Amino acid sequence: MPTPATSIPAAIRWCGDTSGHLELLDQTLLPGHTEHRKCSDVAAVVEAIKMLRVRGAPAIGIAGGYGLVIAAQEAHSQGLTGADALAHIRARGSELATARPTAVNLQWAVDRLLRQIEAAGAAPDLMNLASHLLAEARQIHEEDKELCAAIGRHGADLIPEGDILTHCNTGSLATGGDGTALGVIVTAWEAGRRFRVFADETRPLLQGSRLTAWELVQRQIPVTVLVDSAAAHLLKTGRIGCCIVGADRITANGDTANKIGTYGLAVAAKAHGVPFFVAAPSSTFDLSLATGTEIPIEERAASEVLAPLGVKAAPAGAEVFNPAFDVTPAELITAIITERGIIQKPTPATVATVLGG
Amino acid sequence: MPTPATSIPAAIRWCGDTSGHLELLDQTLLPGHTEHRKCSDVAAVVEAIKMLRVRGAPAIGIAGGYGLVIAAQEAHSQGLTGADALAHIRARGSELATARPTAVNLQWAVDRLLRQIEAAGAAPDLMNLASHLLAEARQIHEEDKELCAAIGRHGADLIPEGDILTHCNTGSLATGGDGTALGVIVTAWEAGRRFRVFADETRPLLQGSRLTAWELVQRQIPVTVLVDSAAAHLLKTGRIGCCIVGADRITANGDTANKIGTYGLAVAAKAHGVPFFVAAPSSTFDLSLATGTEIPIEERAASEVLAPLGVKAAPAGAEVFNPAFDVTPAELITAIITERGIIQKPTPATVATVLGG
Repeated sequence: MPTPATSIPAAIRWCGDTSGHLELLDQTLLPGHTEHRKCSDVAAVVEAIKMLRVRGAPAIGIAGGYGLVIAAQEAHSQGLTGADALAHIRARGSELATARPTAVNLQWAVDRLLRQIEAAGAAPDLMNLASHLLAEARQIHEEDKELCAAIGRHGADLIPEGDILTHCNTGSLATGGDGTALGVIVTAWEAGRRFRVFADETRPLLQGSRLTAWELVQRQIPVTVLVDSAAAHLLKTGRIGCCIVGADRITANGDTANKIGTYGLAVAAKAHGVPFFVAAPSSTFDLSLATGTEIPIEERAASEVLAPLGVKAAPAGAEVFNPAFDVTPAELITAIITERGIIQKPTPATVATVLGG
Repeated sequence: MPTPATSIPAAIRWCGDTSGHLELLDQTLLPGHTEHRKCSDVAAVVEAIKMLRVRGAPAIGIAGGYGLVIAAQEAHSQGLTGADALAHIRARGSELATARPTAVNLQWAVDRLLRQIEAAGAAPDLMNLASHLLAEARQIHEEDKELCAAIGRHGADLIPEGDILTHCNTGSLATGGDGTALGVIVTAWEAGRRFRVFADETRPLLQGSRLTAWELVQRQIPVTVLVDSAAAHLLKTGRIGCCIVGADRITANGDTANKIGTYGLAVAAKAHGVPFFVAAPSSTFDLSLATGTEIPIEERAASEVLAPLGVKAAPAGAEVFNPAFDVTPAELITAIITERGIIQKPTPATVATVLGG
């Protein structure tokens, strides 16, 4: 029997009531150490998001939501009132929303909590406001679990026989539930389907080997790790039935920003006639952008490339190109799996049809 | 002014005369430490080849050649004579030739020295034989330097304007001269062409960041390192004028085995209309094989993937797929650059025309 999902420690948990605090599983320490990090101020939440202690588009949205509860606590403990208090909360909201630029879920979650603040009027009782914010943040968290379950059901019906190739981490650690792409894999497995998951290690930060392999081992689903550049060779062997990945932002035409390497994987999948699926909740869509060329791509520190796992590998004097994401054009995507249904052959029309429903 | 190539320590050097020894730059320690490793018996040479202390198809051919000189020394010091001595040398030759399976240069060099042994008759004077073997090994070494220079000249005339993307290491460390693909880059630079080299880091063993970036920094040629999976995104930016790589074995139709990741890079280059060049001496061709499907692909230890630079990154229970090479079909290769000339659009006919000349 597969180990139940609950054996994987929660990536995000709120401890206590309105005056409580946030705890984030420090994913930079996995799989060696399982350690939760207490966040009692917004700066700690922002730091955790920037440093990828919490990562994955849905998860950072959830963390951003709880971050705004902490912003209200801060305003209260600093004795701020009225416009000063609201200005403090909004400023912290802006810091949270911009902690990472590519995933749209973060801005989406912060905006959702800011609407609670607007509704609270000009001079709200801060602990009462914090209580409303906490309820909304919990709601986002709980909803994400349900979104994952719905994505999992839709995707499990869709994916063909054969082994599955995935990139980065899109599981419990990246979401409030069982995951997006990994949620599909887990749902299919629990429905009795049998396959092996091939997990790209996902340089530079190795979310595939450190996190995806770890989640799958916990769930007793067979997993094989490979270096990212071996994916094309693996596809050529013919044993891969489909590729499935998550997303950080999807534009109105279906273009998808996701972890660096996703685009090259999609190109290779197309060359081998292997279906390429994206799994993401509707909150990952940014319909204000027409195409993927408009998505801001985060460039991260050179040290991620030059010193893998902290060990210096390159000479002084070498420069680095380290985009954290790339954009896969819609024409390389077989279907996008959302909680609202499947977007087959994504186009502006098919995206609008499913997301409007 | 560029630093002259001689500032890069020799990957392979024979010290002394017929009773001398081999020294190999231990490339597993680069770029942190520059340390030569003395090899006084064949077992040490085989170990160095297997552990990639010396690597690169031409370089392991050269090392294999010197290894046979050491085999003759061993036979002499063990007091073997006649058929026993020859059997010892041939057995060591077989160990050397099979230390790694994919690069054909190793078998080619060993075969070349074995022909000296055949010519020496049934009961040769061993130190006289060792002297002939050393002359032949030195000849292979010296010829490789000239092959690199010729490949460099042909390639420098061929490559278009724009920055250059390369994979793995194909420079002084991989050959007896300035390199194959990197030899083309160095020759073009020294002829006054200006560009930036983008070096895939080349997981799992990081020959791109550890070795290629190091060689280019030494030569003061601008170099930018990227994770392998960022190559497709880089190609999409339009700044790459061409990709150029080396080869470990090329079959009669032009199919090319090279470091894992080369195939995916070629697929991505094709998708972006970027020329894809292979640079290799004629000794890398195995005309006994019709197509790349016949090339044996070495699978290496799981630890290379699971513990980058020796630091454990993956959970117990994850399996590993770690092919060291892949095969790029000829139709993805714009041209193969050899010392004998350029093979445009490789096919059995164009390969035969250039290699027969």
